[in-house]
Amino acid sequence: MNYDEIMKLALERGFYFPSCEIYPDMPAGFWEYGPNGVSLKNKYVELWRRELVRRDGMLEIDGSQIMSKSVFEASGHLASFADPIVKCTKCNSIYRADKLIAEVSNVIVPESADLEEFDKVIAERKILCQKCKGALGKAYKFNMMFGVGIGPEATPAYLRPETCQSIFVDFPRVFKVMRGKLPVGIAQIGKSFRNEISPRQSLIRMREFYQAEIEVFCNPAKLNEISNFGEVENVELNIMLDGEFQPKRISCKAAVESGAVPNKLVAYYLGLLVDFYSKTGIDVKKSRFRKLGAKEKAFYASVAFDFEVETSLGWLELVACNYRSDYDLSSHAKLSKANFEVMDNDQKVLPHIFELSMGIDRSIYTMLDHNIIDDKPNERVYLSLKPYLAPVQLGILPLMKKDGLQEKAESIFAPLRTKYDVFFDSAGAIGRRYRRLDEIGAPLAITVDYQTLKDETVTLRKRDKMDQERIKISEIEAHLSKELQYP
Amino acid sequence: MNYDEIMKLALERGFYFPSCEIYPDMPAGFWEYGPNGVSLKNKYVELWRRELVRRDGMLEIDGSQIMSKSVFEASGHLASFADPIVKCTKCNSIYRADKLIAEVSNVIVPESADLEEFDKVIAERKILCQKCKGALGKAYKFNMMFGVGIGPEATPAYLRPETCQSIFVDFPRVFKVMRGKLPVGIAQIGKSFRNEISPRQSLIRMREFYQAEIEVFCNPAKLNEISNFGEVENVELNIMLDGEFQPKRISCKAAVESGAVPNKLVAYYLGLLVDFYSKTGIDVKKSRFRKLGAKEKAFYASVAFDFEVETSLGWLELVACNYRSDYDLSSHAKLSKANFEVMDNDQKVLPHIFELSMGIDRSIYTMLDHNIIDDKPNERVYLSLKPYLAPVQLGILPLMKKDGLQEKAESIFAPLRTKYDVFFDSAGAIGRRYRRLDEIGAPLAITVDYQTLKDETVTLRKRDKMDQERIKISEIEAHLSKELQYP
Repeated sequence: MNYDEIMKLALERGFYFPSCEIYPDMPAGFWEYGPNGVSLKNKYVELWRRELVRRDGMLEIDGSQIMSKSVFEASGHLASFADPIVKCTKCNSIYRADKLIAEVSNVIVPESADLEEFDKVIAERKILCQKCKGALGKAYKFNMMFGVGIGPEATPAYLRPETCQSIFVDFPRVFKVMRGKLPVGIAQIGKSFRNEISPRQSLIRMREFYQAEIEVFCNPAKLNEISNFGEVENVELNIMLDGEFQPKRISCKAAVESGAVPNKLVAYYLGLLVDFYSKTGIDVKKSRFRKLGAKEKAFYASVAFDFEVETSLGWLELVACNYRSDYDLSSHAKLSKANFEVMDNDQKVLPHIFELSMGIDRSIYTMLDHNIIDDKPNERVYLSLKPYLAPVQLGILPLMKKDGLQEKAESIFAPLRTKYDVFFDSAGAIGRRYRRLDEIGAPLAITVDYQTLKDETVTLRKRDKMDQERIKISEIEAHLSKELQYP
Repeated sequence: MNYDEIMKLALERGFYFPSCEIYPDMPAGFWEYGPNGVSLKNKYVELWRRELVRRDGMLEIDGSQIMSKSVFEASGHLASFADPIVKCTKCNSIYRADKLIAEVSNVIVPESADLEEFDKVIAERKILCQKCKGALGKAYKFNMMFGVGIGPEATPAYLRPETCQSIFVDFPRVFKVMRGKLPVGIAQIGKSFRNEISPRQSLIRMREFYQAEIEVFCNPAKLNEISNFGEVENVELNIMLDGEFQPKRISCKAAVESGAVPNKLVAYYLGLLVDFYSKTGIDVKKSRFRKLGAKEKAFYASVAFDFEVETSLGWLELVACNYRSDYDLSSHAKLSKANFEVMDNDQKVLPHIFELSMGIDRSIYTMLDHNIIDDKPNERVYLSLKPYLAPVQLGILPLMKKDGLQEKAESIFAPLRTKYDVFFDSAGAIGRRYRRLDEIGAPLAITVDYQTLKDETVTLRKRDKMDQERIKISEIEAHLSKELQYP
């Protein structure tokens, strides 16, 4: 099914919808999660904690979104996190200078070129506003960070454009008080903010978005001393090297041996990541690690793989995997004068960093994209979500509201409601109630009918095959807990 | 124990610490949660979901933190969410005008007075800058919202000063797509932002903070038709009416009958709230619902109770309970022209709203404050947290690193690590390792020693009484899961 059909489901079934949609002055690029979206996202985050953070003994922090100006002086964002743009002098339309030039004239001026370069090509090629044919003004840099003024003095600060900056500046304290040992992952889930010029495609390019970032601090002399490597050595990765057009399927172990991945530390985390995504119900056969070439890599990355997944929107980057070396800690150490060196046994080390920078919203979109099923023979659409990720785990449906069925159903609901995500639904035809539960991926539903009043049994219906069986009320929780088990 | 001792524990044991602490240009009022703080906060949030959201069938959303200007035109924040301040013309020190006047001269000028009033009293009483004795400039209003400019056009928008605004503007869609029925609670956890002039006391008054807000949408004609009221009618509340100095202890039922609480709907949620807080391990005997007088209430509230708890910092407001009537929905309906009326059976209703606006950070502080115990006879400090809220649930301690004890301990750790919050600690004397676990409130610890290698048993130690017993390795998970049960 395509993007529009997924959007329709998201809007109509409370997964996500535009922010402040009742007001026309709300800019684009902001989205809300509705009740089913919140529940799905929470379960995704819990899986991330299980399979990456806790499994690997990482330390999780939760830092401020507003950070000081010096943080972004050190990180390079104040100087470099900017797009070249041009504005129409007549209708004020705004364009990314490099993209406009490429579209209209096929000339490639790199994003990072001097501003005069853009002005020169625009003049030479006589490029005008695409909307009103007005003349374009001079190119200028537009920084994508949102500035905020703090206190009555309006001290300049910024909404962080990536969560990892909190991890870097907190590293000295967190490593010390948690008595860290290299290699150690520090993880964080939270909002980041980027003032995109053209936000688009709902959860794909937002101005306010969720990241789950993991920064692994390591001793650069020990990148092949990874004690748990055996746990992932046979996990298969699809790796597409720079300049290649087809990924190669290869185990973590073979990836290191062949040099496709530079060391065991990087391969270990790529393996954990594939293992994690296979448990989200995203089809990892449709995934690839695309190794970025020198021109495509971020300025801080010495080796970079984008974890990309094929969806109805084409290939989406879900996770950026960057070996950032000591770029971040050196820069912060230099500007702050704080000490970022730590002891690794008897050796003093300025740690290097390997990061897994995950987009949560895009991952949620991809889960819907890979799990939405148009079941035409049964005239239904359903979400084949993993049961432990389903926003609603159990539907409880009294066949009728009358004759004590509603009350009986409520008595079944009461002891389950705090522990599980149970949806109680007594309105409308039973078939339509099943369809609605299918559309939000509820793996199980029970129906309370007249027989229930006689023999304390209910009908248990399963989502995927729509098979039904008669079980005792006392067995419901056992069925539920079995169905919801993690692999 | 006092505030400073709690702060010391928070800093040294990874609960919380100042944001961007390595940089002096970071303004005050921003804090990070470290690994133990994140874990405690996550468990607090899970308890809130269990005991309030899921128990009561509420709908949870997660909205953007940046919201459009019209939202705050309608809400009244653009016009009214401002403090009167004055600035020294010589040294630029800034003061809240009303507070400065009250401190220096004992004259009371209400916060909401005309600005000329402040200027007049400052001139009459010859009030000068308290730092340099310079003359003060004219009073002006300082709006406490953080503005942000969106896109290259810098469209004005704001970081929300309260999470509830997302709930109000999302109400039409959420009620419709989730097929809501009055009364229905819509809940949200997230960050809010207030540009406080004087942030202070770490988690108590922050500029960026977590709220957990619940807005109950109800039919104002049915405030005494609450089907679950029986579940809370005997819960005891400490209610302190306007003008009284001692709270009265009274059941929810008696509170409604005596008129201390205006109706069953309000009493029901006050009861749920006390029940929730008693499960957080905060001592609710030290709590009170303080009914606010006409001058103290927010402009939108027709009845308001502050839920306050006594701590080492005095009485802290943890939850504002406001009956907001139709103030919010009317204002948003008027400005947006969207329809906020819904059907309640056959009646068309503009719902009224009762809210429980909870400060999460303050609640976390209060949990530490009420649970930190200076156990002098045993030369330790410990946190008597409820086991289901403890940041670390189990410590695993090999007696020695050598002789295979480390490996044996790791083999016990491996199957538990994804499911539970387990801390593996093999460094230092065993007594000191126990003390550190006590300080973060870990309810259980096991020690792996030479006997373990012989008979597959370990020592299980419990936090509060420090009692130890010998159990089989195969019994660890059963002990853990029993200990962590919710009440």
